[in-house]
Order: sequence, then C-alpha cells, then structure tokens
Amino acid sequence: MVGVMNAAVDFPLTRPELAFTASGDALVRRTVLPNGLRILSEHMPGSRSATIGYWVAVGSRDEQPATADRPATFGSTHFLEHLLFKGTPSRSALDIAVAFDAVGGEHNALTAKEHTCYYAKVRDRDLPMAVDVITDMLTSSLLDPDEFENERGVILEELAMMDDDPGDVANERFFERVLGEHPLGRPIGGHPQSIIDVGRDAVVAHYRANYRANDVIVTAAGAVDHDALVAQVSGALVQAGWPADAVAAPVARRTLAPAAIVGGSPLSVVHRPTEQVHLQIGGAGLIAGDERRFAMSMLNSILGGGMSSRLFQEIRERRGLAYSVYSFAGSYSDAGVFGLAAACSTAKAATVAELMLAELHRLAEHGVTDEELSRALGQLSGASALALEDSDSRMSRLGRAELTLGEFIDLDESIRRLQSVGQDDVQQLAQHLAAQPITVSAVGAVDEDTFAPIIAGVR
Amino acid sequence: MVGVMNAAVDFPLTRPELAFTASGDALVRRTVLPNGLRILSEHMPGSRSATIGYWVAVGSRDEQPATADRPATFGSTHFLEHLLFKGTPSRSALDIAVAFDAVGGEHNALTAKEHTCYYAKVRDRDLPMAVDVITDMLTSSLLDPDEFENERGVILEELAMMDDDPGDVANERFFERVLGEHPLGRPIGGHPQSIIDVGRDAVVAHYRANYRANDVIVTAAGAVDHDALVAQVSGALVQAGWPADAVAAPVARRTLAPAAIVGGSPLSVVHRPTEQVHLQIGGAGLIAGDERRFAMSMLNSILGGGMSSRLFQEIRERRGLAYSVYSFAGSYSDAGVFGLAAACSTAKAATVAELMLAELHRLAEHGVTDEELSRALGQLSGASALALEDSDSRMSRLGRAELTLGEFIDLDESIRRLQSVGQDDVQQLAQHLAAQPITVSAVGAVDEDTFAPIIAGVR
Repeated sequence: MVGVMNAAVDFPLTRPELAFTASGDALVRRTVLPNGLRILSEHMPGSRSATIGYWVAVGSRDEQPATADRPATFGSTHFLEHLLFKGTPSRSALDIAVAFDAVGGEHNALTAKEHTCYYAKVRDRDLPMAVDVITDMLTSSLLDPDEFENERGVILEELAMMDDDPGDVANERFFERVLGEHPLGRPIGGHPQSIIDVGRDAVVAHYRANYRANDVIVTAAGAVDHDALVAQVSGALVQAGWPADAVAAPVARRTLAPAAIVGGSPLSVVHRPTEQVHLQIGGAGLIAGDERRFAMSMLNSILGGGMSSRLFQEIRERRGLAYSVYSFAGSYSDAGVFGLAAACSTAKAATVAELMLAELHRLAEHGVTDEELSRALGQLSGASALALEDSDSRMSRLGRAELTLGEFIDLDESIRRLQSVGQDDVQQLAQHLAAQPITVSAVGAVDEDTFAPIIAGVR
Repeated sequence: MVGVMNAAVDFPLTRPELAFTASGDALVRRTVLPNGLRILSEHMPGSRSATIGYWVAVGSRDEQPATADRPATFGSTHFLEHLLFKGTPSRSALDIAVAFDAVGGEHNALTAKEHTCYYAKVRDRDLPMAVDVITDMLTSSLLDPDEFENERGVILEELAMMDDDPGDVANERFFERVLGEHPLGRPIGGHPQSIIDVGRDAVVAHYRANYRANDVIVTAAGAVDHDALVAQVSGALVQAGWPADAVAAPVARRTLAPAAIVGGSPLSVVHRPTEQVHLQIGGAGLIAGDERRFAMSMLNSILGGGMSSRLFQEIRERRGLAYSVYSFAGSYSDAGVFGLAAACSTAKAATVAELMLAELHRLAEHGVTDEELSRALGQLSGASALALEDSDSRMSRLGRAELTLGEFIDLDESIRRLQSVGQDDVQQLAQHLAAQPITVSAVGAVDEDTFAPIIAGVR
C-alpha cells in the first residue's frame, strides 16, 4: 500500500491539465494513481465531517441502440446504479445499508446524462468506512440475477413516480423536444419499456465497459487528509483485486464542442386532468465549455433566479398568475438547454407562456440595467459562498471540474469572471437565446391548440 | 438603544424556565426584552454565516370558524405569511426581495400547524440587514388591499400545486381522518374555498391579534454575537414604533396535554388516474411533550427510517414492490400522528398496505433486537451531529425548544436520552401504536373496496 502511495503522481497546483487558482478559499490536492484512478480532495479547516463521491464518466447519453451482435443498453446506466447497492462477495445489500445507517451517514447515488456518482456524507471518523464500502460496491458488484429481477420492479416504480409528477414530465419532454435525436435528449432513467426489455447481460456488459479504474474519479471535501485518503482508496482497490498499480492513463474527457441538433420539435403537450399546467418554454442553450457561461449565470439570475427576478416580479408579484416561476439552464459537453418554467391554472396557461417569452424578448431588445447586473453578481457570489460552507458543494465542484472542464475555479476566480460580464454580454446572449427555435412543453388539462398562437408567433 | 439593551433580561443558563444543559456542543444565550420578545442565539465558532428565524406562535390550528360578530379565519395564517412579503411603509415588495437577492441570501417563511416562521440565511456581514428587513415585515406590514387580491391568486395556485401532488394529498387526508374534528386535522393552507372566502378584514384582525412583541421569538445560529443581535433587534423594533420597552410577559406556551380525538375515520380514498397509489396508514401518535418521544425516534428509525429499516428491507429490497417506503411521526402540543407511507403501482396497493401494517404488528408482538437498537442510536446521533453543522438546524432547534418544550436539549443530552431507551420501551410503544384505530389514506387509481379487508381486519 505504501508502494502504491509512492507510485502515485501528485500534480503540483500549477500543472496545466487541471489548473488550480492560488487564491484563498480552496486547499485542493489531486493525485492520479498509476491505474488511472483520480483522487481530488479539498480540506476544510474546522470541519468534523466529510463528503466523498465516486464519479464514473458514464451517463444515459452513452447508452446505445441494439446492433447485430449486442442488445440495446437504454436504461442500463440507472439500472446499474441501483444494482451496485445490492451486494458484493463480501457485503450483502443489508450490510451496505447498515454500514451507513449505523453511523447516521447519508449515502446515495445519482445517474445523470453524462456521469454517475455514488456519494456519502459522514463524520470524519467514518470516512475510511465510506471508502471501503463504496470502493467495494463499485469494483465488485455481484449483479445477482434474482436481485436484478427484484430491482427491475423497484426501478419501474421509480419511473412511475416520476411519471406522476407533472413537473418532471414537462422537463423530460422539454429535453426530448429541444434536443431531438441527440442522445442528451433521452430521459435519464430510460422509458418503462426499455427497463422491461433490458437484460442482465446488457447491464453486465455496460458495467465491465465503463467501470474501470481509469474511468473513476474520487472527490472528497471537509475533514479530509489527502495522503490518508489516497492510502485508503489504494488499499481498498487492492482489497478488491483491482490492481492499484496496473498502468493506465485516465480516460480522456469528453470533447467540449457543440453538436448539431437534428429533429428538435416545437411542441409537446401531455394531457392530464390536473389543476395546474406545468410549462417549460425555451430552446438550445450553451455547452459546458462555452465562454459565455458566466454571462448565462448572470442572465439566469436577472431573468428568473430569485424573488427580485423579472419573471417572478412580472408573473407572480404584479399579476398573481403563478406560484412557481423561474428560468433554468443546463449545460453538457456538446449541447445545452435554456428554459423558462411555470405552473399555473389551465385558464392562465397561454397568458403565462406569452408573458414569459415576452420577458426573454424584452431582455434581448432592451438589455439589463447596471443595478440588475450588480444585484446578480451579489446574488451569485453570496449564494456560492453560503453553499461552499457545506462539504457537499465542494465535493461536487471538484467532480465537475475534473470530469467536464479540466479546470478548477475557486470562489474568488469565479467572482472575478462574473464581474467581467457586462451589459452587452448579457444582452447579446439574450438575443442569441431568443433567436433559437422555441419549444413549448406542457403537462396538464390543455391541448395543442392552446399554444398554437405562440408557436406560430415564434416560428 | 443602549437603554433597551440594558433593560433586557439575560437569563443564566440554569434558569428553570428554559433549561440549558451544560455539555459541550452548544453555546446558547437567551434574552427576554421588557416587551416580552424573546431572543435566543447559538454561536458557532468558525462560522462565516448565520441563520435567523422569527417565530410567531400562531398556526393553522388557531384559525376559527365564523361567529356572530366575526368572519371565519380559516386560511388566514398562511395568507398572512404571504402578505408580509408584500411591503411596509418603508419597503416595497421588490425592496424586500432585492435586499436578500442582492447578497445571495436565502429568505423564506413557512406556516405550520402551531407556528409561523420567517427566516433567512446570510453571510455574517449581512445579518444586521436581515434583522432590519424581517423586523420591518413582521411589525409593519401594509396588507395593501390590491396586493391582497393579487396574492389570493398566488395562494390558490400554491394550493392547486399541492392538490396535484398525490403524496401531499394523501398526507393531508391522513391528518384529517386521523385527527377528526381536532383543529390540528385541518390542512395548513386552508381549502381553496376558504381562501376565496376570506376577507382582508379577517386577515388584518388575525395579524393584530397574533403578531405582538410577546408572541415573537427570534432565534439565530452561526456567526452570531448575542449582545449585538439583541441591540439590532431592539433597534429595529424602535424603528418600527413597536416600543421595545413596553412591558409585557412572553405569551404562555401551549399546554402539553393530550386532547380527546373526536370523529376520526378509518378510510379516505381519492381517486386519481395516476400510475401509482400513494398510501399513508396509521393513527394517533404522541404529543410533543410525551416522555416516550425518544422511544418513538428509535422505533421510527428501526421500522422505517433508512435503507436498513424493516419497511425498506421487506417491501423494497426483498420484494421490489415500491421505490419509496418509510414511517413518520408528527407531534404537536395536544395531539400527534404516526404513520407508514409508500407509493406503489395500483395492483400492488392492497399488498403493500397489508405488509406495512404487518411490520408494525410484528414489532409490537416480537419487539426489536439489541443490534437494531444500537444501530438506531448510531443513526440518530450521527445524523444529528451532521445536521448540527448547519446553522439552519441549530436555529430551528432553538425555536422548537422555546416555542414548544421550554427545555433546550443539546446533542449530548439527546444521545443520553436515546441511550436510555430499551427494547421494552420500543416494544411497548409499538403495542400502543398498533392498538390505535387505524386509518388508511390512499390517492390513486383505487377505490374503497381495495382496502376493505384491511379496515375490516383492524377494526
């Protein structure tokens, strides 16, 4: 284990592959094991707990349709995430659950479009346990056939639960319609039929292909000693028979470049006999590497980011038309979305949709005030500062930096970049967004005719 | 202002009215202003932010039906909570929103059955601003007639949103059926018709009757200096023309004694064309002051508190019948509820309901193991330790202590009380709960016949 530690490569903070700014809020170290597994940690002085995440660079977008010699893998990323909790040769599903419950730790996982993450938040003394259990889950899952069938039922229940949530459905359909045939347009959990169809062989193959040491990034924040963490992870890998000293380079990051969007469509209406209509309106946004992402944060704050935002003030405060109204942006390696969202009574749906779009166009035509810009800067920097008090946020920040951008930006640097955003930057971005083909996604007691004037107006 | 400070009464930690344990995790101070307003704070060394809450001891249970000389006040507590964000003589609604947005603070309020709380989380330097704004909102709301009508629309949208959430509906109906005619059985936000009916006069009267200095408790945790906080609050009260030195005693706490439950009923089925059925099954629980509340925490952890709990293991892990399954307990001054909850496909609803009840009865008949008891202790103490890293949790703990129990219990003391819970305590409590009249609340594509065998079996 000591040998493994010595073999680890500890990059200095200035190494170009992952740039660390020198300013004050972060104390970050990064080690790449010879087998390609990366470990990043951020020590938070005074903290008595830690959050640790194991990130695997595989998400729902990486699933594939069937070919002549291989079945479809749709839904298998999320299926796999569930199965990893179901046992290894040395731990039953109950053992895994007990390990974290017995110390009052939080322990969960999430599947996203471009990654899967297994994480835990525990008291400092329980961090070695968390490393042992999560490493075991990731490296040595049994994917037991009986558990596989049982879990199929649980996942179908999870999808049914999401299908009963009109906001979730509106969002899934929004992605499908905006992104068309792009793999990022597919729902993360798959469709129920793909879960019914997927076989254990496909999930096993997905596991073997995507869960290798050089696919994995471990990030931790809080009461973490980096050298001890590297030793613990290395030891757990040896325990698992995943040789920590087999030589491999970390897998390459996804290329950050916009893909062409093919087959997007302007309207999705899911009729439901609900009180409210859930609306999402928007179109293509920015990719994760887009230089305009800081302008996007400012725009999003001004347009729909808080109680003083334009959408909230116009639609809720001045007109009383909705309880929930906001804007959102999602960015991925080669595509992104930007949208306006609200939930309101059926009779108000067309009006709310028109008013939301009008606010986007007003931003594009008339821009923002200096006061709005400085308020947005205050909001984003204050909220980030508050968030970074939790080790969860810092753990996630490290994961996103290593997984997506290859650049670590601490709070001071991100405030500096936000400060450099001017009125023109926000207005030009608003013009760009307003010029995209517009998609309306609605779930509720409405039909396609409700939105025909909007669709006609913007096409 | 200094005079006001000097006039404040600073209770020593041993004052019997609010007992503070001496052990390590808390540094709590309590001041009662001459006008009866209470201020409690807990300093967290090293923290750079603070959470502050203004608690008013009025909730939905305090609303009244119409009398000969007064209209009904149903829904007015929650209505008032919304209106307090709508402006004062010195701040418009936008000013209030901007104040917090401009510093990236969190700012919100919640109405509960026995209290209303206005709270904010901000960086240390912004705490004086939070005190000024929230004090102004609480003391000097305009309750402007135009804003009143506008906000009626917003609240109706909020109720519609909740009505579209099958889990929320199942829970509201569960309370209504378990608690019968008790005022705690009513939904917090009122029914839509009560919001349509309530007039501004009733809400104004509700405001004047319940928002006086001696109804209010200010609690803060994090980067808080108690003396400075007392000075800030006192100064803001003077500014508001709420004389900080008018003499009044704090209003009495609610009496902690069980009320008779009249008119509870065994079954509520709301038919909805959803994929899943949301189920809540249970009955009367413990009041907030019940000595068995620590046994209840242990029981709840063992039965349905985590991935290793009996409900999770039996219904999700072994049988794959549900994605979400857990138990819950709610305690109030003179009544409480205890329930088992799950969401599952329609065809499984009767089975899941039976299995959940069977687990409660198994607990009552056969008790718990020592291993389960020690795991529950580890879970509750570990989770509490993690939660108390956030100033939000400590702010809330202070509010609940002052509002409900009149006793402050720090982490060490609560662990001590949990440790004193034995196998017999949990089993006897399970027997007590299992012997209560059982109510089933279901929302989904089911009808009353689905649950007839269960109702017949337990009655």
